[in-house]
Amino acid sequence: MEFLKAISSEEALGVIDSFAADPVKETVSINDVLHRILAEDAVSHEDIPPFPRSLVDGFALKVKDIQGAKETSPVFLYIQGEIKIGEAASVELEDGKCIYLTTGAMIPEGADGVVMQEFVRTAGDAVEVTKTLHRGENICFQGEDITKGKIVLQRGRKVTAFDVGLFSVIGMPDVPVYKRPVAGIISTGDEIVSVEEAPPFGKIRDINGHTIANILKDNGASCIFFGIGKDTVDSIAGKLELTRECDLVIISGGSSKGQRDYIADAIVRLGGEILFHGINIKPGKPTIFGRLWGRPVFGLPGHPNSCAMVTMRFVLPLLRRLKGEEGYKEKRVPGILSTNIPSTSGVEEYVKVAVREVDGSPYVTPIFSKSPVISSFVDASGYIIVPEGKDGYEKDEKVEVCLFE
Amino acid sequence: MEFLKAISSEEALGVIDSFAADPVKETVSINDVLHRILAEDAVSHEDIPPFPRSLVDGFALKVKDIQGAKETSPVFLYIQGEIKIGEAASVELEDGKCIYLTTGAMIPEGADGVVMQEFVRTAGDAVEVTKTLHRGENICFQGEDITKGKIVLQRGRKVTAFDVGLFSVIGMPDVPVYKRPVAGIISTGDEIVSVEEAPPFGKIRDINGHTIANILKDNGASCIFFGIGKDTVDSIAGKLELTRECDLVIISGGSSKGQRDYIADAIVRLGGEILFHGINIKPGKPTIFGRLWGRPVFGLPGHPNSCAMVTMRFVLPLLRRLKGEEGYKEKRVPGILSTNIPSTSGVEEYVKVAVREVDGSPYVTPIFSKSPVISSFVDASGYIIVPEGKDGYEKDEKVEVCLFE
Repeated sequence: MEFLKAISSEEALGVIDSFAADPVKETVSINDVLHRILAEDAVSHEDIPPFPRSLVDGFALKVKDIQGAKETSPVFLYIQGEIKIGEAASVELEDGKCIYLTTGAMIPEGADGVVMQEFVRTAGDAVEVTKTLHRGENICFQGEDITKGKIVLQRGRKVTAFDVGLFSVIGMPDVPVYKRPVAGIISTGDEIVSVEEAPPFGKIRDINGHTIANILKDNGASCIFFGIGKDTVDSIAGKLELTRECDLVIISGGSSKGQRDYIADAIVRLGGEILFHGINIKPGKPTIFGRLWGRPVFGLPGHPNSCAMVTMRFVLPLLRRLKGEEGYKEKRVPGILSTNIPSTSGVEEYVKVAVREVDGSPYVTPIFSKSPVISSFVDASGYIIVPEGKDGYEKDEKVEVCLFE
Repeated sequence: MEFLKAISSEEALGVIDSFAADPVKETVSINDVLHRILAEDAVSHEDIPPFPRSLVDGFALKVKDIQGAKETSPVFLYIQGEIKIGEAASVELEDGKCIYLTTGAMIPEGADGVVMQEFVRTAGDAVEVTKTLHRGENICFQGEDITKGKIVLQRGRKVTAFDVGLFSVIGMPDVPVYKRPVAGIISTGDEIVSVEEAPPFGKIRDINGHTIANILKDNGASCIFFGIGKDTVDSIAGKLELTRECDLVIISGGSSKGQRDYIADAIVRLGGEILFHGINIKPGKPTIFGRLWGRPVFGLPGHPNSCAMVTMRFVLPLLRRLKGEEGYKEKRVPGILSTNIPSTSGVEEYVKVAVREVDGSPYVTPIFSKSPVISSFVDASGYIIVPEGKDGYEKDEKVEVCLFE
């Protein structure tokens, strides 16, 4: 009966997207910043490099001094000295002279090119240059990599390994990031026992608590597991009471109608409100989304398959906002269907698929499974979405696969 | 001169692949197992589900009892009782009767189908069933998800969030994994200062130490940074002495010829051997690979761009073996070049690219940059490989992009 109120996936995402998210800043060491979300634009307060540098081992010179130089008629230049790497160039290059330096060393005042050692013959305190240069050749100019004042990385970015190198080069040993959202996770069901227990006949071990926690952890949340609630409003409300410090709460359970109602009822009893109950998707229809003490609460289906799909499609977009991530792009790859996929019109359907390369083309094969079957995720590369208005796809049709990352 | 000995990228990978790797096992809690490498096949010692379960809310029955049932001529069955979820079914279903149960509850002995509540009218202690079933309908059979004795996840697999759910369902609270390899990282160069320091004029801050450590961390290593060595054999050898507990050592530095020799000389002075010095690649030619105290040592180019590329192409394959990972597949996506890419024949070249969707097609644009320029990684989605025997690619040619992950 509650399905009468089921809304489209688009509407559901709209409700989720309009839930206010207000990520909080903290500062972490550059050594701990990988994969965190940048809370402020990273700006360089210096030119990088901070001085012109040689790109090669050779001699800094004035390009006008070696006009016409070639193998058969080299140009002589006196060696004025040497600039060691890491040293400030303290002299100004004089006309008709050159200064020896190695890759990375500072270009002296007056020089506008560096000739590689390979194109030079040394003769006592002079060199013969056997080739011309264009102005600026083999020099990396001051600010050529990064200009002073430039935003090198934007707020909301998920920090990559390369980014950490950039924080270093611009001198940011401490980096402002958003705090990790804390997700409270509750499993429910009279049939569920924890992984440590030997399940009595009739019961099974918890899957959803582990799967949800690890999907969220993989996406930047800190997770607290509050254990397994029973199928009563009291038990679930009791567990919910423990989650007051969390930024997000996810309860899974309720394969049957009665069970689902306990979750919604517990949220309401504690003063929360249900924002939707039911989405026109398969699997995952009986999904609940609500607000409790100002924070978002999801009630996810008990079927492990449905629970994992809804976590990825509906919980992660909210998590990304809670953690301040911007510009996220789902990883999708094109593929060709190796078989028909029937689907029910009026429902957005998620079909797990395997992608295999056949003659250089990515072939996509659906992995059909009954709802509770979790092992099918092992062989799946991702899933395809059959939109609400479509009754499926045909063999050889081009599809896009959303990759499990 | 050392470039005379440069080998092809294929030969270099061959040398690296023949370096013995002997990952060590340890056991971690299921709560810490995400992204770790499984050290033994995970086998289920039970059927999953361990008993037949109902996929719906409804009545378990004998299919033969409802032959011919339809809306206009329903079949009457007496209600023998109810099996609650999580309970062992203690009764055997009698002929002509049915038992109420909810989704996930155990199917009683004797029943071979479950009719959904929607297709049943209840009348006191009996029901009218208004539709037929095929045998097994709405039942998830014992062992249908996982058969007892089945290998559910193979040794060498990198554990995903879904896998953690599987460990739980088969009852593995502790999981055998391989220890994280410990990588010792050393930066070198008289021009290099740490991120905490204000660089004096002529010096720049370390990039490579941070980039290498974070690329390796991202790929499952523990990293120890041993600081910045000077451009002397003594200084580098002194740093190397500190890395005896590491499984892998990576020294970066040496943009100039002299600097490179210090790294090789330091390895040799401590009793190590150089396995190759120079690869026919661009960027990254002056790469060193050796053995010291039985463990692998890389000498990576000082140019940050080259250093990062060589870390990804040559260090990561070794790291994967050191951590026991099997079946790794590089993420590659197809694309169409938006411009020509010239390249030097005789050298395998790595060109960073941006991938942008234009009219539904992935257009690939090279990001050309001078070697020391690190900021170009920010805009790149990945890189393409121009093989040694090819002088480049042409506009509109199809290429494969290796994605930065």
